[in-house]
Amino acid sequence: MLNFVFKNPTEIIFGKGTIAQIDARIPRDVPILLTYGGGSIKGNGVYQQVTSALEGREVVEFGGIEPNPKVEVCLKAVELARSRQVRFLLAVGGGSVIDATKFIAAAACYEGPDPWDILRTGGRDVKTAIPLGTVLTLPATGSESNGNAVISRRATSEKLPFHADCLFPVFSVLDPETTYTLPAEQVRNGIVDAFIHVMEQYMTYPCDAPLQDRLAESILATLIEVGPRTLAEPQDYASRASFMWSATLALNTLIGCGVPQDWSTHMIGHELTALYGPAHAETLAVVLPGVWAHQLAKKEAKLRQYGQRVWGVATAEAAIGKTEEFFQSLGMPTRLSAYEIDADQAAEAVGRRFTERPVKFGEHGDIDGDAAAAILRLRA
Amino acid sequence: MLNFVFKNPTEIIFGKGTIAQIDARIPRDVPILLTYGGGSIKGNGVYQQVTSALEGREVVEFGGIEPNPKVEVCLKAVELARSRQVRFLLAVGGGSVIDATKFIAAAACYEGPDPWDILRTGGRDVKTAIPLGTVLTLPATGSESNGNAVISRRATSEKLPFHADCLFPVFSVLDPETTYTLPAEQVRNGIVDAFIHVMEQYMTYPCDAPLQDRLAESILATLIEVGPRTLAEPQDYASRASFMWSATLALNTLIGCGVPQDWSTHMIGHELTALYGPAHAETLAVVLPGVWAHQLAKKEAKLRQYGQRVWGVATAEAAIGKTEEFFQSLGMPTRLSAYEIDADQAAEAVGRRFTERPVKFGEHGDIDGDAAAAILRLRA
Repeated sequence: MLNFVFKNPTEIIFGKGTIAQIDARIPRDVPILLTYGGGSIKGNGVYQQVTSALEGREVVEFGGIEPNPKVEVCLKAVELARSRQVRFLLAVGGGSVIDATKFIAAAACYEGPDPWDILRTGGRDVKTAIPLGTVLTLPATGSESNGNAVISRRATSEKLPFHADCLFPVFSVLDPETTYTLPAEQVRNGIVDAFIHVMEQYMTYPCDAPLQDRLAESILATLIEVGPRTLAEPQDYASRASFMWSATLALNTLIGCGVPQDWSTHMIGHELTALYGPAHAETLAVVLPGVWAHQLAKKEAKLRQYGQRVWGVATAEAAIGKTEEFFQSLGMPTRLSAYEIDADQAAEAVGRRFTERPVKFGEHGDIDGDAAAAILRLRA
Repeated sequence: MLNFVFKNPTEIIFGKGTIAQIDARIPRDVPILLTYGGGSIKGNGVYQQVTSALEGREVVEFGGIEPNPKVEVCLKAVELARSRQVRFLLAVGGGSVIDATKFIAAAACYEGPDPWDILRTGGRDVKTAIPLGTVLTLPATGSESNGNAVISRRATSEKLPFHADCLFPVFSVLDPETTYTLPAEQVRNGIVDAFIHVMEQYMTYPCDAPLQDRLAESILATLIEVGPRTLAEPQDYASRASFMWSATLALNTLIGCGVPQDWSTHMIGHELTALYGPAHAETLAVVLPGVWAHQLAKKEAKLRQYGQRVWGVATAEAAIGKTEEFFQSLGMPTRLSAYEIDADQAAEAVGRRFTERPVKFGEHGDIDGDAAAAILRLRA
């Protein structure tokens, strides 16, 4: 086991009818910025529950945050937050709204010349931010319980992650009933996103961390158990609740403690979204089997363990097959052709991105532009 | 799944050579109370590492805290903390030292007439406390990452738990190497204590919480895997590290989120320790099989699931047998006779304690004095 530091101060308020509990958790007498996405929260009762919990307070609204949130849009919210002297941010939505709100929280306190530098430096210099809370309406990214965010820039088709300890939400409300009206495609994406978050922290090499392995396998097995059920029966509380809690624990940083991590699939997936537009989880489902095939020798021991424990199959190859079948069973494509993306062209374009920066990643730090290109060529 | 609130702000600093990191985490220019137990930390280098990390600061020492810490002793530390205007507490030791330090932290800020009332009311009125950090030297109780403590009173042979949110340690250092010199008996006790902490949050009835079940089973399986190895090879870093992390996650309140909890074994065990003196874990190993046998019908579904998943046996009875065998394989007795305690007499004495208060417990709230007596009669 590797040395590690673990701290996750976010308070999780989980269950039916819990949105009203935000009232006691947001400081009184300060202006609040309420952020949200395309407005679905106005159709499903969430907006009403939130505003009724905030009654009597000074609330500034900033809606219209889109998937893969853009810095160009977030900076308008930063301006609004500054001019209205906002002292608390409440993000109501999924990972995109929460990620955008984290950027707003950091950028509003940022004193450098160009807020995009927050992304360029991975958040290294972010030491203070406006405190934020969340009401999660889409289980997927885990952003409700970590200090991470991913922001895109329209001008340059970039999509970059950043992290800061001061960006853990103060609280996050997780009411599974708020997710009953989600489109099936978003639920499918959420299941795959959470599944692959676990994999990035698990599918590396054995390092004497049997508890971390089993915790990761627990989340994988639960997503495999409840994923199809929650897609088929969106209003089955039990399976939706387990899906929601699984997605949070997949990336609240606990299961990654003391173990090597990969994140190649995310690095390559971000570029595909930035260049070609498929949703985050869609790119991950395409890339993951390619990373595994390309790194088969190095990941074989863990792939075999995963296959045996989670799927009851004997070989690494069978474990990869089972995983791809699982994604497909959720209605999730696993090939670039499903998005009419030419594999050779994508390989060249994405490879160039990493060669130019230059950057290497993966648990051995050996995935460079050429390796990324080779991985994508496997996913035609 | 039940509604829940989860918050655990403790920062865990885990791994080899990490004690020096306390320096950056303790406020400067405030008097610090350093608490510890019988002095073993002076023989194994831990005391030297701690004091060298604290060099140049005002440190007041309070050693000699014994197992099952007594309020009579703790109050002397409270007096010392007040007179020296202590503003930070550093507990260096196992659960007893940490629990005592939590009581000192709370009692130093307590304004009621009798600090024992903190225990009588389970910590209900504890809203402020002196902040504390810990350097854990004995994996067992989980006290390094929760807001719980158990304190005894010599005058009345009482042993009671309390809890307050302000008592989560600010940080806890977990360096597995600090535990290499522990006596085998304490390691054995720690394994059993952690195992039964998981059971109190797991062995109830199914409630549509498959992730929580699997997380609990992960810790159980890991303790079964690394427990015998770490007893046999105390200086094997890998197994000691996994044991240490398992014991923390067994009671950092995560696995109990959203599920019914039992705690009967602890309630009855505390009385046995208070009345007859066996160590905490020793009483738990005696009581647990009795609670299960007594509650067999109500716990059968979960006992069977546990047996199948963790031990590969088919029935609830076989699962109980495997558990008792596991404890015995660690050198842990599972019968009252091992401590020369008469079962009938203990049943009467412990039963009376619960009948007098009166108090009922267990996941159905149906374990009263009579049930506790019946449980103990099964453990002759």
